[in-house]
Amino acid sequence: MDSNPLKVGIIGLGTVGLGVIDFLKKNKSTITQKAGREIKISGISAKTKNKKRELDVSKFKWFSDPLALSNDEDTDVVVELIGGEDEPAKSLIENSLLNRKHVVTANKALIAHHGHYLALLAEEQQVSLNFEAAVAGGIPIVKTLKESLCGNQISRIYGVINGTCNYILTQMENDEQEYSKIFKEAQDLGFVEKDPSLDVGGIDSAHKISILASLAFGSRINFDNVSTTGIESIDLIDINNANAMGYRIKLLGLASKSESGVSQEVEPCLVPKESLFGKLEGGTNIVMVEGNFVGHTHYIGPGAGAGPTASSVVSDLIDIARGNIMPPFGQKTNQLNVSLHAVEDLFSSFYLRFLLTDKPGTLAKLAGILGKHDISINRMRQLYHKDENAPVLIVTHPTKKALLISAMEEISKLEICKNRPVHIKIVDL
Amino acid sequence: MDSNPLKVGIIGLGTVGLGVIDFLKKNKSTITQKAGREIKISGISAKTKNKKRELDVSKFKWFSDPLALSNDEDTDVVVELIGGEDEPAKSLIENSLLNRKHVVTANKALIAHHGHYLALLAEEQQVSLNFEAAVAGGIPIVKTLKESLCGNQISRIYGVINGTCNYILTQMENDEQEYSKIFKEAQDLGFVEKDPSLDVGGIDSAHKISILASLAFGSRINFDNVSTTGIESIDLIDINNANAMGYRIKLLGLASKSESGVSQEVEPCLVPKESLFGKLEGGTNIVMVEGNFVGHTHYIGPGAGAGPTASSVVSDLIDIARGNIMPPFGQKTNQLNVSLHAVEDLFSSFYLRFLLTDKPGTLAKLAGILGKHDISINRMRQLYHKDENAPVLIVTHPTKKALLISAMEEISKLEICKNRPVHIKIVDL
Repeated sequence: MDSNPLKVGIIGLGTVGLGVIDFLKKNKSTITQKAGREIKISGISAKTKNKKRELDVSKFKWFSDPLALSNDEDTDVVVELIGGEDEPAKSLIENSLLNRKHVVTANKALIAHHGHYLALLAEEQQVSLNFEAAVAGGIPIVKTLKESLCGNQISRIYGVINGTCNYILTQMENDEQEYSKIFKEAQDLGFVEKDPSLDVGGIDSAHKISILASLAFGSRINFDNVSTTGIESIDLIDINNANAMGYRIKLLGLASKSESGVSQEVEPCLVPKESLFGKLEGGTNIVMVEGNFVGHTHYIGPGAGAGPTASSVVSDLIDIARGNIMPPFGQKTNQLNVSLHAVEDLFSSFYLRFLLTDKPGTLAKLAGILGKHDISINRMRQLYHKDENAPVLIVTHPTKKALLISAMEEISKLEICKNRPVHIKIVDL
Repeated sequence: MDSNPLKVGIIGLGTVGLGVIDFLKKNKSTITQKAGREIKISGISAKTKNKKRELDVSKFKWFSDPLALSNDEDTDVVVELIGGEDEPAKSLIENSLLNRKHVVTANKALIAHHGHYLALLAEEQQVSLNFEAAVAGGIPIVKTLKESLCGNQISRIYGVINGTCNYILTQMENDEQEYSKIFKEAQDLGFVEKDPSLDVGGIDSAHKISILASLAFGSRINFDNVSTTGIESIDLIDINNANAMGYRIKLLGLASKSESGVSQEVEPCLVPKESLFGKLEGGTNIVMVEGNFVGHTHYIGPGAGAGPTASSVVSDLIDIARGNIMPPFGQKTNQLNVSLHAVEDLFSSFYLRFLLTDKPGTLAKLAGILGKHDISINRMRQLYHKDENAPVLIVTHPTKKALLISAMEEISKLEICKNRPVHIKIVDL
């Protein structure tokens, strides 16, 4: 056994930070055996020193300035668990790398925005920049893409990777309540980020899918090109309609690669109720990867929480302790492709909902516009209604999103159209 | 980029061997980029040189003696894809390791029987012995246990890890046919190993669960202590009864660790229809891992076939090309625990089926014997019957298997008992 322990500084003592400390203590002998050496905490840092915490941290060396910990000579690895796409996390990681310290982080926002630059820096300094905990909590999807499915040409990676959104959508269905009420409840339960748009606006999922896309496709991380729609405008009626047709609505991260480039999207989609995606409840995450030799594989597990996230952080630390140092995105950073952006390229079916004046010729007009845009109808239903406006549901045959959006815009301008028409992509998993 | 290619000799040109050659060719540029160097085939060997194969292998250097390939100076890695628990695979791997060549194998039987010895040898020679392809086809479960969940104390690992058995059980249900008919069909389709007991006797699953248990628990591989029951005696009536109660029958590999030791079992079990395990169709595999920090994670994917298995073989090769050399079981081999064997320790509910003479007092007698063995009844049903013998179904409350088996033996000796009583474990996943 290497007598040299790996010395780890932990910055940020929220749920995850305390989870990591707890993990390193409780599983010390397992970790030492697997890592081949001890993993020891050399120092800790957080905003407030004297604060009631679930764990006694008084025995650890305290750094009131986190930057000082990233300069500490007695520290081999800096674990950044502050979060946030910019300062102070960015400078901390930068400084740690410049000091030739390995970095482990759970910070998806930072990796999505600055991952390429930081990866170049880590490689230059010949240290690790590991971020298993940044995507899908306890599911080891980062390593799976970097080291297991890595020989495959990956064509698609789909995931439900934000537990809060999945919780809200599930609760809307179970409680038969509108979004605003369930959102409020989730907020009261502490499930929603301080800036709610990160969760319900789809931005958190967008951070994560941009990381997965880069790992899967060997392309340079490109968060700005993730086309992102959140769940804020999902109505209960669409959840119920979906249900009646054998679907559930999930916020999906979708990345795919074709000859025309890489497409990255986050949007609510209809998925078959009976699929692995449709069955997903609460905060559980799922990721599906499609490779040209392996076919389809699925990974399911807890997407957040102290234990699962700490499990991913510790696996990154064990890799470093073992001397398994790899380029952060699984291949030389400067060889990552600058991929073309291709969103409107894929064919999908769509669920459409209109509220139309109930007069002769209305449906014909609607169908005419869809036909003009080359969109053919798979199923159409006019629902029971008491007043003069008729709810009309349509499922299209696969079509290009761009065509659909032009058609929807044209229809929304018609006199006969009484709602802002709803369109939701159908993904047959 | 390292200008030095990794030179690989492939022994065995069946489905998987040809799959690996195809993979290395088709995905050459992806592999080179991920591995940081080229992976090149230095030679091939199989029983028959001139044979019609799906792939033209004439351009590769042919070794009529596989042992010569394991001695070849121009080969860095030997990929053993012959299979079989003993010769010639064993000597080939042994010789390769002694020659300080890395070894990649898909041979679960060999690892289950000789893994400990071969791992010691690999470590001594400071080379890799990788076997991702030995368990669950394309699912990267070996690396996940070795490198991702490795800090966790793993308490359970459950899997459906033999596609043939799952196919047969699924078909029995779908076609409403008895085992013997579906088994014959599966054999005609080429789904069953030459020695069928490997598949339907549960031995293949036992090989695999012994490997997973060792990786998960840090214990020395112990195939001999896997308690193994196959699917040969599963009757259609039990599949149908299970179905009516909300369950399906799956052949599970079950490994768990408690204070009293490690338990390893392969046996048909009732699993909830609506669970991830219950939903599994055909040749797909699933593995569930429970760790003390990560909680439950599930891994689902193709359990066999050229592409998925080749994907795992190639990931092992890329690891070697990257210089990521690890002890075969994820920690120093001589530090793997010799674990105590503990099978009868776990509490489970059981499904029981009896055929009893339909006379007053019969059920009382049955219930009396169960009670005497401390087995309490959760549900009991006597089914509709035309003749004098009544089918009786019982679901027990959780009990120890040893108690149950004594009770079943006592009941089977009774005059009133007209069948060999059936008991199947219920696993609530």
